[in-house]
Amino acid sequence: MSSTLNFTHDAARRSWVEAANDPAGDFPLQNLPTGIFCTATHSLPRPGVAIGDQVLDLAEAGSAGMLPTEVIEACRQPTLNALMALGPAAWSALRGRLSELLGADTCPDGPLRAMIADCLVPLREATLLLPARVGDYTDFYASIHHATNVGAMLRPDSPLLPNYQWVPVGYHGRASSLIVSGTPVRRPQGQSNPAGSPAPVFGPSQQLDYELELAAFVGPGNSLGTPIPLARAEENIFGVSLLNDWSARDLQSWEYQPLGPFLAKNFATTVSPWVVSLEALVPFRTAAYARPAGDPAPLPYLAADDNQARGGIDLTLEVLLLTPQMRARDVPAHLVSRGNFSAMYWTLAQLLTHHASNGCNLLPGDLLGSGTVSGPEKDARGCLLELTTRGREPLALPGGEARAFLQDGDEVIFRGYAARPGFVRVGLGECRGTILPAST
Amino acid sequence: MSSTLNFTHDAARRSWVEAANDPAGDFPLQNLPTGIFCTATHSLPRPGVAIGDQVLDLAEAGSAGMLPTEVIEACRQPTLNALMALGPAAWSALRGRLSELLGADTCPDGPLRAMIADCLVPLREATLLLPARVGDYTDFYASIHHATNVGAMLRPDSPLLPNYQWVPVGYHGRASSLIVSGTPVRRPQGQSNPAGSPAPVFGPSQQLDYELELAAFVGPGNSLGTPIPLARAEENIFGVSLLNDWSARDLQSWEYQPLGPFLAKNFATTVSPWVVSLEALVPFRTAAYARPAGDPAPLPYLAADDNQARGGIDLTLEVLLLTPQMRARDVPAHLVSRGNFSAMYWTLAQLLTHHASNGCNLLPGDLLGSGTVSGPEKDARGCLLELTTRGREPLALPGGEARAFLQDGDEVIFRGYAARPGFVRVGLGECRGTILPAST
Repeated sequence: MSSTLNFTHDAARRSWVEAANDPAGDFPLQNLPTGIFCTATHSLPRPGVAIGDQVLDLAEAGSAGMLPTEVIEACRQPTLNALMALGPAAWSALRGRLSELLGADTCPDGPLRAMIADCLVPLREATLLLPARVGDYTDFYASIHHATNVGAMLRPDSPLLPNYQWVPVGYHGRASSLIVSGTPVRRPQGQSNPAGSPAPVFGPSQQLDYELELAAFVGPGNSLGTPIPLARAEENIFGVSLLNDWSARDLQSWEYQPLGPFLAKNFATTVSPWVVSLEALVPFRTAAYARPAGDPAPLPYLAADDNQARGGIDLTLEVLLLTPQMRARDVPAHLVSRGNFSAMYWTLAQLLTHHASNGCNLLPGDLLGSGTVSGPEKDARGCLLELTTRGREPLALPGGEARAFLQDGDEVIFRGYAARPGFVRVGLGECRGTILPAST
Repeated sequence: MSSTLNFTHDAARRSWVEAANDPAGDFPLQNLPTGIFCTATHSLPRPGVAIGDQVLDLAEAGSAGMLPTEVIEACRQPTLNALMALGPAAWSALRGRLSELLGADTCPDGPLRAMIADCLVPLREATLLLPARVGDYTDFYASIHHATNVGAMLRPDSPLLPNYQWVPVGYHGRASSLIVSGTPVRRPQGQSNPAGSPAPVFGPSQQLDYELELAAFVGPGNSLGTPIPLARAEENIFGVSLLNDWSARDLQSWEYQPLGPFLAKNFATTVSPWVVSLEALVPFRTAAYARPAGDPAPLPYLAADDNQARGGIDLTLEVLLLTPQMRARDVPAHLVSRGNFSAMYWTLAQLLTHHASNGCNLLPGDLLGSGTVSGPEKDARGCLLELTTRGREPLALPGGEARAFLQDGDEVIFRGYAARPGFVRVGLGECRGTILPAST
């Protein structure tokens, strides 16, 4: 929580990139998310910043001498790992400079603005890639609503396990199968043990699901054996993206005892291409989840007044579904749920500090998934397992269709944004994936 | 199981590196394991091959024109990943050439032998590093004896879960905290919930344990969405090492529901530096575990006659313990258990094929841990949890000491070797780690 409001958050400021001033847009001057992109004519992956309908090429801007010295080398790399390693002072210096360069007030029409314009690439011409080479991907389980809803299907009498309110439960996911938004997802095959079947069977998953999550990219991190205290946790978070933790529920329920999810999830995990910095989210910080009376306080290593007061993020997260029939009939994607990240039981800082509390080393570019973001309301449930009560109450879609789980050709679209009176709306962009049939 | 016996396995052949002919040694001419090393005078990490008490510098040997063309570039890299990516034909060509170059019969005293001798570095002068940059580390649970022993402590009436004989159970581990043999291991802190405690506590683990495992490094691997059939599995295994899956049992039992082990294991995992190829192990291949009557047959994707007949490896694995008191009194390390990898319920090929069966992409250098290697006999149990029945029956050590779990200063040493009449003994070397006190 070290960042404070500054001129980069000023709602009165506009960009000379006209599309950035659209009040409904994701990428205004106040956002400035980073990503990795290439184009048909320049195929080398390089860092960029989204501004309106354009990408600013950070490699070119750096080579032209327009960026702070300390970030220039990092902005020449094919991933954001080097930039992530630099830490908050460098990130903030870059953000401040970009805000100046792209601001209509700070960069008047003239030669400098023309130089910057030369470094812009239309977003529609950019191929967006994974922001980082992820060494380790960890997935948490930080929504108590999700944990309770899922637990209730397995253990109606005691939905929540005894450790939940004490331990920010997490597990290691698969780094190799992280893919960027827009990459199709092949339906996995695997073992399941359907009710009434005389023996387990192997075949295409019949219960393919999505999970709506927020992803945090690790910054400088820590060396092996050295924990990260809660007060320093956010210095080690470069920013956030959307994440779809695709899940094959039939595989999961058969395989997960006693060592947790494995093939039910490691066939693909989709990440959105733009990483929104914590500094961009300063106006939208809010209290951590208010634990109801009777819940234990976090143990001291996970407790701080500052974390409780401002550890949350008021971030609206939406799931939309587009089926082949809807696509054929030009029906727009259907909103199936809308949740808010402030409903999470554990803050990002608590997740990171817990992760490193045993000395586990977190490295620049590592990815922390929040776990499914589900709120207390039924329409704030972040996966079909919860929304349809494991398929028993299928979701009604426009045109008379229904979905218990995902079908081939379905596209799942996540959107995320922060909005608050007096500030400019900041968007996370989209995280999309379409289901391909299982391989034969 | 594509490799067959050839001249590299011939027990009559000797090396002109005299120490390689010690019948009790780990690194005879018939072994030729690869690793990564550097020295005080040449600090660049580079591939090497262990031969007797020497390391052959593969980067130098390649530059001097002595290696097959197709491996020279890979042998200049600071990790073995590029060599692992080349596949069995290249691995076999390298092994064959090295066997010629280092054989007393095939490389007589003369200028070529002198050139090779110039590429040798004494092992005692070499700093051994991790063999590969591991993208993803997966840990399995392939010993039914281990699963049964551990399950019996948790569920005396039904030790083995219903999925065990069907699913090669595994989970993702932590890649960043993989360390090479000899690196000290700091005792982790973490949450546990001791019996009788009014609430969970945070502090140094009181139940620190080791787990004896075999590790397999992945070769070329597969692209996302494309499974690896069982018949092709071993083409994707570069070789094996020893692995210590350090485990904090008190943290584990409190955190592991419902998503599996996390901080109980990700503080450190030790790997031995030398990777023994499957080709070196051809003489020691044996039948897969004989499933007792009543056990189901593996599902078709995990079943093949060849795998059943020759999928096992007759590899003896030992655990030794050296306490500070023993060290002070010059007492040698004490053998606490001896098991055999042929007792594993699932073969390495089955583990790899299962892993990729949902399309999960395995990449060169990825690491698969077998899970604790425990046999049916009590003295073949591969961790203290099993050996001491969770500390209730402490292990007696020389000098009157006892151990329920590991204490600070204890060193755990794994050794592994294959031996069979008519063939030269092949060793895996050692996997060592000493416990440091928790950080304060």
